[in-house]
Amino acid sequence: MSEVNRIWRLRKRPVGDITDDVLSFEEESIPEPSDGEFLFRLNYLSLDPTNRIWMSEMDQYMPPVDLDAPMRGVVCGTVVKSRHPNYNEGQIVSGLGVWADYQLGTPETVNPMGDTGPVSVVDAFSTFAVVGPTAYFGLLDFGEPKEGETVVVSAAAGAVGSIVGQIAKIRGCRAVGLAGTNEKCTWIKDELGFDAAINYQTEDVPAALAAACPDGIDVYFDNVGGAILDACLKLMNFKGRIPTCGLISQYNATEPVPGPYNYGMIVMQRLRVEGFIVLDFAERYPEAIAALGQWMAEGKIKVRTEIVDGLENALRTVKKLFTGANMGKLMIHVKNI
Amino acid sequence: MSEVNRIWRLRKRPVGDITDDVLSFEEESIPEPSDGEFLFRLNYLSLDPTNRIWMSEMDQYMPPVDLDAPMRGVVCGTVVKSRHPNYNEGQIVSGLGVWADYQLGTPETVNPMGDTGPVSVVDAFSTFAVVGPTAYFGLLDFGEPKEGETVVVSAAAGAVGSIVGQIAKIRGCRAVGLAGTNEKCTWIKDELGFDAAINYQTEDVPAALAAACPDGIDVYFDNVGGAILDACLKLMNFKGRIPTCGLISQYNATEPVPGPYNYGMIVMQRLRVEGFIVLDFAERYPEAIAALGQWMAEGKIKVRTEIVDGLENALRTVKKLFTGANMGKLMIHVKNI
Repeated sequence: MSEVNRIWRLRKRPVGDITDDVLSFEEESIPEPSDGEFLFRLNYLSLDPTNRIWMSEMDQYMPPVDLDAPMRGVVCGTVVKSRHPNYNEGQIVSGLGVWADYQLGTPETVNPMGDTGPVSVVDAFSTFAVVGPTAYFGLLDFGEPKEGETVVVSAAAGAVGSIVGQIAKIRGCRAVGLAGTNEKCTWIKDELGFDAAINYQTEDVPAALAAACPDGIDVYFDNVGGAILDACLKLMNFKGRIPTCGLISQYNATEPVPGPYNYGMIVMQRLRVEGFIVLDFAERYPEAIAALGQWMAEGKIKVRTEIVDGLENALRTVKKLFTGANMGKLMIHVKNI
Repeated sequence: MSEVNRIWRLRKRPVGDITDDVLSFEEESIPEPSDGEFLFRLNYLSLDPTNRIWMSEMDQYMPPVDLDAPMRGVVCGTVVKSRHPNYNEGQIVSGLGVWADYQLGTPETVNPMGDTGPVSVVDAFSTFAVVGPTAYFGLLDFGEPKEGETVVVSAAAGAVGSIVGQIAKIRGCRAVGLAGTNEKCTWIKDELGFDAAINYQTEDVPAALAAACPDGIDVYFDNVGGAILDACLKLMNFKGRIPTCGLISQYNATEPVPGPYNYGMIVMQRLRVEGFIVLDFAERYPEAIAALGQWMAEGKIKVRTEIVDGLENALRTVKKLFTGANMGKLMIHVKNI
């Protein structure tokens, strides 16, 4: 075990884009587990848009990270010392932790990964810890897609969006994705099987969406809010559903952001807009993991993971999520499992 | 039968407030029913916020009224000549008609009022034709209020809002209403039994709402959109519901209206926002009418109707809905039943 513990602490709430002074990278001593706790060493750190929410004081679904506290993250690690009867040295765990080499866990925050079957631990962490269940429950529980319907998803080359479109295809829907580069559009269309892809940076989104959705939109899985949400609202069919997963277009805003101008379509077309957070589905994770694992094994769902090496690169890498620089799931590799 | 038929025709789409040149009041000949039609004479004309929608070309739930066509309205009348086997002279009918003394009906648009039991025909038309079922289905189907929860309603002294709050009380909820005058606030609190009333014209709405809803808001029945919606979003509880009935604050807008600035709360608190139109519930009208009729007979629901005499006053009267000048249901009386 190395002598020091490298740890990212929140020093400032971001205003606008995440800047280098928001977090500091410290060397500290390794904590000692008390009774009922265990110490684990970080293998992989998941980077997610919600990190930006936790850094801020905006209204959110759990308390923000306190100033000077370790930065919160979804983590995968290996138990190195345990004072909890159900956790043993060498066990692989994942859950809600912090951006640090070594950290304490309890069963309330971190759980054994268990047998990941034919899926590697890395893929299992990448897909099953957050983004796969987010796509699964968000689309199926709130989107209720029916065969032949049109499902549109934004941030479609992102970790969640890319899975949403593939589940839509499995359910017999037309899948239309919006992404910010031609490379991303090519990937979701040619490799993931989306029926249509729209480059929202270069195309006229309302016109391109109308062309890609000749029968209107039945489900819009919203990851971004803003202008894309407005364009989708205009095309929603009667009784359409808008599962609302995130609003990444506005997390970095410094001024109040107006909601959709076409909000009135909710009444006119009797739409249902529903927000969700995957944490609410903890008890049903096995259902999502079983389905996703099978679809991955059958080749029906392909996942892409962009792994950046080194905990020291976490801050510069998390910014990629907000510039559209990444494809698929973004993670930091800290130490091999 | 008088010789002429007075009829309001749409001559211009309103820009901003409804102006006097939007409709013209004409004298025309009385139409003759063809086979399968009947002619009825108008007794009462319902005036509703949706009239402004039908006049415009905004996205809406049925085709707008064509320019130069008779203005559409919810009507109550008496059959004077029938060429339909199920409709007889003297029968009282109600449904979707036009702003005219005499007009043709078919079973697709206008139906017999039937036996209204202990409720007068006027009260039955006022409450059962549109606003009562709107409140009933909107609150119960989409709001799903549970005993002990807090239900907030805007335009609470309006025809729909006043019934929403009373149904909330019947269901054991805390009912909080927003209205635009002290007189309205006194009425809904002292006569209708709301737990709290907020004058949104004179009070600090976010602060007053927070004070009136110490346990947060579980259901916000939205009639108005805009700033009141934003204030409610801030106070919504986990898994709160926002049945969206109307957005009267923006129907007269001349510029695109931003959606709620606190739209992100939909994700953070996992809210469900759902739009509805009472027309979708045609088959379940008997359920709503039975419940509302019983509650009215038991004195649990009180309705207030503001009746203005004379079809010639329809245009100047409908404007009241947008200035907050009326309380309860607004109607035009044309001819005694």
